[in-house]
Amino acid sequence: MSESILSRRSFIQMSGAGAVAMSGLSPGVTDGGAHEKPVNPDPQTHHFSMTIEEAQVTIARDLKAKVWAYNNQVPGPLIHVVEGDTIEAAVVNNTTATHTVHWHGVPMTGTWWMDGAPGINQEAINSGGGEFTYRFVANRPGSLWYHCHVEVPNHVGVRGMWGPLIVDPLEPLPIEKEVTREAILMFTGWNSKVANDYFATEDPTDHLDFYSINGKCFPYNQPIRVKEGDVLRLRLYAATVGVAFHLHGHDMLVTHQDGLPMPAPYWADTVAVAEGQRKDVIIRMNNPGRWPAHDHNEHHLSNGGDTPGGLFTIVEYEGIESDPWYLWAKKEYDPDFYFSESLKQGYGLIEQSGFKADAVPDEAGLAAAETVQVRMMDRGPDGTAKVFDPGFVRISRGQSVEFVPWDFGHDLESVPGLIPEGAAPFSAPKNAGALVRFDKEGLYAYQCIAHRAIGMVGLIAVGHSSHDKAGFAEKIASSPELSEGARLRLMALLEKL
Amino acid sequence: MSESILSRRSFIQMSGAGAVAMSGLSPGVTDGGAHEKPVNPDPQTHHFSMTIEEAQVTIARDLKAKVWAYNNQVPGPLIHVVEGDTIEAAVVNNTTATHTVHWHGVPMTGTWWMDGAPGINQEAINSGGGEFTYRFVANRPGSLWYHCHVEVPNHVGVRGMWGPLIVDPLEPLPIEKEVTREAILMFTGWNSKVANDYFATEDPTDHLDFYSINGKCFPYNQPIRVKEGDVLRLRLYAATVGVAFHLHGHDMLVTHQDGLPMPAPYWADTVAVAEGQRKDVIIRMNNPGRWPAHDHNEHHLSNGGDTPGGLFTIVEYEGIESDPWYLWAKKEYDPDFYFSESLKQGYGLIEQSGFKADAVPDEAGLAAAETVQVRMMDRGPDGTAKVFDPGFVRISRGQSVEFVPWDFGHDLESVPGLIPEGAAPFSAPKNAGALVRFDKEGLYAYQCIAHRAIGMVGLIAVGHSSHDKAGFAEKIASSPELSEGARLRLMALLEKL
Amino acid sequence: MSESILSRRSFIQMSGAGAVAMSGLSPGVTDGGAHEKPVNPDPQTHHFSMTIEEAQVTIARDLKAKVWAYNNQVPGPLIHVVEGDTIEAAVVNNTTATHTVHWHGVPMTGTWWMDGAPGINQEAINSGGGEFTYRFVANRPGSLWYHCHVEVPNHVGVRGMWGPLIVDPLEPLPIEKEVTREAILMFTGWNSKVANDYFATEDPTDHLDFYSINGKCFPYNQPIRVKEGDVLRLRLYAATVGVAFHLHGHDMLVTHQDGLPMPAPYWADTVAVAEGQRKDVIIRMNNPGRWPAHDHNEHHLSNGGDTPGGLFTIVEYEGIESDPWYLWAKKEYDPDFYFSESLKQGYGLIEQSGFKADAVPDEAGLAAAETVQVRMMDRGPDGTAKVFDPGFVRISRGQSVEFVPWDFGHDLESVPGLIPEGAAPFSAPKNAGALVRFDKEGLYAYQCIAHRAIGMVGLIAVGHSSHDKAGFAEKIASSPELSEGARLRLMALLEKL
Repeated sequence: MSESILSRRSFIQMSGAGAVAMSGLSPGVTDGGAHEKPVNPDPQTHHFSMTIEEAQVTIARDLKAKVWAYNNQVPGPLIHVVEGDTIEAAVVNNTTATHTVHWHGVPMTGTWWMDGAPGINQEAINSGGGEFTYRFVANRPGSLWYHCHVEVPNHVGVRGMWGPLIVDPLEPLPIEKEVTREAILMFTGWNSKVANDYFATEDPTDHLDFYSINGKCFPYNQPIRVKEGDVLRLRLYAATVGVAFHLHGHDMLVTHQDGLPMPAPYWADTVAVAEGQRKDVIIRMNNPGRWPAHDHNEHHLSNGGDTPGGLFTIVEYEGIESDPWYLWAKKEYDPDFYFSESLKQGYGLIEQSGFKADAVPDEAGLAAAETVQVRMMDRGPDGTAKVFDPGFVRISRGQSVEFVPWDFGHDLESVPGLIPEGAAPFSAPKNAGALVRFDKEGLYAYQCIAHRAIGMVGLIAVGHSSHDKAGFAEKIASSPELSEGARLRLMALLEKL
Repeated sequence: MSESILSRRSFIQMSGAGAVAMSGLSPGVTDGGAHEKPVNPDPQTHHFSMTIEEAQVTIARDLKAKVWAYNNQVPGPLIHVVEGDTIEAAVVNNTTATHTVHWHGVPMTGTWWMDGAPGINQEAINSGGGEFTYRFVANRPGSLWYHCHVEVPNHVGVRGMWGPLIVDPLEPLPIEKEVTREAILMFTGWNSKVANDYFATEDPTDHLDFYSINGKCFPYNQPIRVKEGDVLRLRLYAATVGVAFHLHGHDMLVTHQDGLPMPAPYWADTVAVAEGQRKDVIIRMNNPGRWPAHDHNEHHLSNGGDTPGGLFTIVEYEGIESDPWYLWAKKEYDPDFYFSESLKQGYGLIEQSGFKADAVPDEAGLAAAETVQVRMMDRGPDGTAKVFDPGFVRISRGQSVEFVPWDFGHDLESVPGLIPEGAAPFSAPKNAGALVRFDKEGLYAYQCIAHRAIGMVGLIAVGHSSHDKAGFAEKIASSPELSEGARLRLMALLEKL
Repeated sequence: MSESILSRRSFIQMSGAGAVAMSGLSPGVTDGGAHEKPVNPDPQTHHFSMTIEEAQVTIARDLKAKVWAYNNQVPGPLIHVVEGDTIEAAVVNNTTATHTVHWHGVPMTGTWWMDGAPGINQEAINSGGGEFTYRFVANRPGSLWYHCHVEVPNHVGVRGMWGPLIVDPLEPLPIEKEVTREAILMFTGWNSKVANDYFATEDPTDHLDFYSINGKCFPYNQPIRVKEGDVLRLRLYAATVGVAFHLHGHDMLVTHQDGLPMPAPYWADTVAVAEGQRKDVIIRMNNPGRWPAHDHNEHHLSNGGDTPGGLFTIVEYEGIESDPWYLWAKKEYDPDFYFSESLKQGYGLIEQSGFKADAVPDEAGLAAAETVQVRMMDRGPDGTAKVFDPGFVRISRGQSVEFVPWDFGHDLESVPGLIPEGAAPFSAPKNAGALVRFDKEGLYAYQCIAHRAIGMVGLIAVGHSSHDKAGFAEKIASSPELSEGARLRLMALLEKL
């Protein structure tokens, strides 16, 4: 074996990579052999508070988008732990839609009800203040992520509901230990047609026309700054769009797929990452210059047709003098845009001011939050038939609820005896819907006249002060207006109070 | 080498995989060394009858699609043989379009004319009862498939003409022998706009909006049921759409590409399969729960915009209690939806009642099968210029033929002297077409007035009883109405009788 | 280890492949260890003249497209050198748009300003005769390519600005030495809607509807002819569209990604190549017949909806008798369509008559070259704000310049004192633009009234004879009509003279 091969090997540490590739996975999941699993000698439990907010982000000069933002950020905050740590995340949903958190790549060993798939392994977290606490062991290392799992073409596809979850391995590859600089790149698309309408009826992924890295289209994003001698690791997340990532001036060693070491790392100048996948690449930075780094799918390289744009950034070496014609000559630099600084801040949930979203602007003089939307549906986001979605809504006095005929044929009326004394009955005629303002505190039950037999009912709590839950439960139990199905479903909804 | 590595290896059998990866391919194709090929000690010959039918399938609540169905099924029936076996499949085409069967992945060593590419290695099988018998050795193992090769954006893209062909290897990998449960998942798309029109003029793949696994969109498909301890093999077929397949709760070991063992199997939580490819993944089922398994391309996760939907299913462990909110709580279970039962039924062609299609409904009081369509084309599906397609049609007495001006400028007339005595001449004026009913048995020749010189002619056989083929050949030979090109082509068409 | 495995190994030369995979990369880029790099004992310097021309190509019977063609070819000419050779390419841009050449896969070690990304590592090459000479060492072997890097969705996506660059390795793999026949296949898409309009305002990649191999859609392209016993190498370039390439009758060994040997070559019948990537596959041709070879994405298999079409070709073995129904029975054969002959012609830039483009046809009696277009833009193709693009234009006497309001709000006027004596002032009113004919030789400066303060100016040189550059510089320096920003920018533009 020639010296050159040995030398190359000392970079790749092929045998090392192979070994860890074989042993680095959660053996509980794949082998059942507990003796294999590296043991975290000092596992931590991280308690996080997470919220989901209605907000607006600016993706490019020409595009603002309404989002549901984890901790009011797009991307959501970095969550950074060590393999074997426990995560306890208390989530509050402050929006008018239901949501969840799916922890993509975490095996959820023995905790399948923490997986975040609505109607499958949990109920969706209710709108208007619904809460759910996720608790699980992060027993699988790598570049993981989290995202909502409700109506994914909308929530994940175009509403910014994704963020990075990095689980440091207990036994990193030799080459990982050489890394001096890290960057996380989350690739996603946007649809300018529905950006301003949370509940547009068209398929939001039908025609994407803006594409961003970490929520910003080129040139509104940031350079990746390095210095000669750095060993750079890029964690490439094809969060919602597949990419063919090309780096100029360097070949990349593809070391990890979905956070797991590859048995045969390979070199490439253009790395394909399919939707949902992550690939980690490691690069020796030994060729000073200014180097484009971008998706090679041309459709992802404009902002609604304007070029340059889209999934494009620039690797800048320190010490390269700028030029007057350099398009980022006067760029205001944010060293944490790719989470490089956040990743050094120790473990936990790390928020980032640069990703904070703006408030949703007033429209027609009415703050968006003043109206909550309830859809009258044949099939709800969790797959159940004939539902109001969300079924339970908590609002303030003076707020309104818009009942929207999402599917048609649903004829809504408030249930006599199940609204506060003195409050006006309300209805939403078939195929027409209604906008109803609630000025009196208390609990309001309503039902679909046609489908109450199968439990198509809803509950509205007006006022955030305490309600007479027990008293209302009694009314439900004894009401002659309710079918058995409606009674059971209302009881379940009351539990959400 | 640590114990954990050895233990991991005992699962992957890496060296074993590598060895078979090297030797498991058909050496006739790749090496020319017959000494390498594992020899089937007892090769079987399987005789199959296959038909192609006009039928209708229900893909989702909101979508019925007209298909051409192999043995009246979508997917087509499972064909299951052992490496080295011979397949003899007698195909009868009962539809009004031409078709073939391409056996994707079979090398067709020494039998290239059995490969199923029309105009390249065979003539398309004629409509109205055309027959062709494929005979070849299945000398290459793995997850193969079959599909039509005529006008593929239509026939394969949106007409359901695909089915699985599993060729068991003579020398399976060690890990394959551990498998306790198998599932075949064929991913395809649909276009609701053309679903009801076999011959829509727009490109049927221009805008797909429904996506199915084995012909059904979620939630109209089925769970994959397993029990703890199972070793599950998923055979992922990207039959017409590429997927990024994500399984919750488990990492997958990718063991085979296109049916062939990979030299370096790798772990992933999201596996990319490009159009036409197959990847086999193997998973230890040791994490009980209910786990989504789905494409991560959000555009493939709705049914025409409705969510949840599309390329999505659920892995259910035995023993997990259901929940009232579980969207498949009342699912009627079909244990063979993923061919799991069919694969255990021994070898041969295995039909499946669950995949049987419905009859195409009557339209305007006329059964579809009563009218056969002949297109007047500048370029036929096999690439030849100026043709009637199909050129030869066999119908029953009382059936009609609709001559459709697919491309314009073709002016059809029956050839004097080449229709049955007493039968009425017929024509289809330029750009207009015609619907012609045939009430008299016998043979009818017709031609394009403008292009008869280059052989643009057609032949219709009315009545399934015997025809005077020899007598008609004499008439063709002596007719003063025919050009030489027309004469030659008519003779060839007569051979199809 | 069985004999069969050894035998297989002798074909793959797995250990050899692995070894070269490790050592075959440019160590300057990846390792910093000069001792590793194989040294070219006799490096050559290749001097090429390249031009960029406005031209028209015929992609399919139904589609002609306006292109910007390297050396008037689509694909651009083959460039073929040995690892370690130096390339010096003097490029002249004879079109009315700005362009560059990016050398995809060349590390540009120590020559980052030769990388071809406008506004990042070089200024774009000006229209109307602009020149730039690229000089760099091709120190990284493999299937590389070159393409424009200006407004890539248009220039690369649908204007034919791509060609192959093959850098022969100093240390080829054993299997590479066995190759007897080579073919280069560049896969790209086209958009018939914008094909006739260089500057259509819509995103040209929004809806591709034609797909070609080496610039021709099936069946207007060519067969790949082989003989039994050949070892065929296909270099698959997903230049602008990703493909899933399926070869009938043979499995392919995937040996190289992006020109670099893979550590674990694998077998496949369908090979995925993402946008911008290249994969080399090697096949033993030992199964005589006629075999389709095509993308398996059905949307890429029609010509604007007509089938057969698109990314499809046929491998023809010598000695297979044709059939009357074979759609290429009368094909006029071009043995160099896949560069097979060009690759044998030694090193250098090898033009090919078969790929030469046609002149752009006259429109409304005016040759396209007689009018040069200048766009008034908020953001130029290199990302700079408020520019005329191109800023500098050189035309002949009698030619016209069309000032196009690409973005609106720009109000153009010629600068008093900075046009030739006796020439008429000109202007282009806000939002309207203007077509201005220049009949007098000399230099013309103009500016945007609203944005001259930030240097939104342009310069036109009429007549190709020498101009009084120094005198004009003095006028610029002393003009009271110019802001400081305008003065600086005009000086820079004058340097382009």
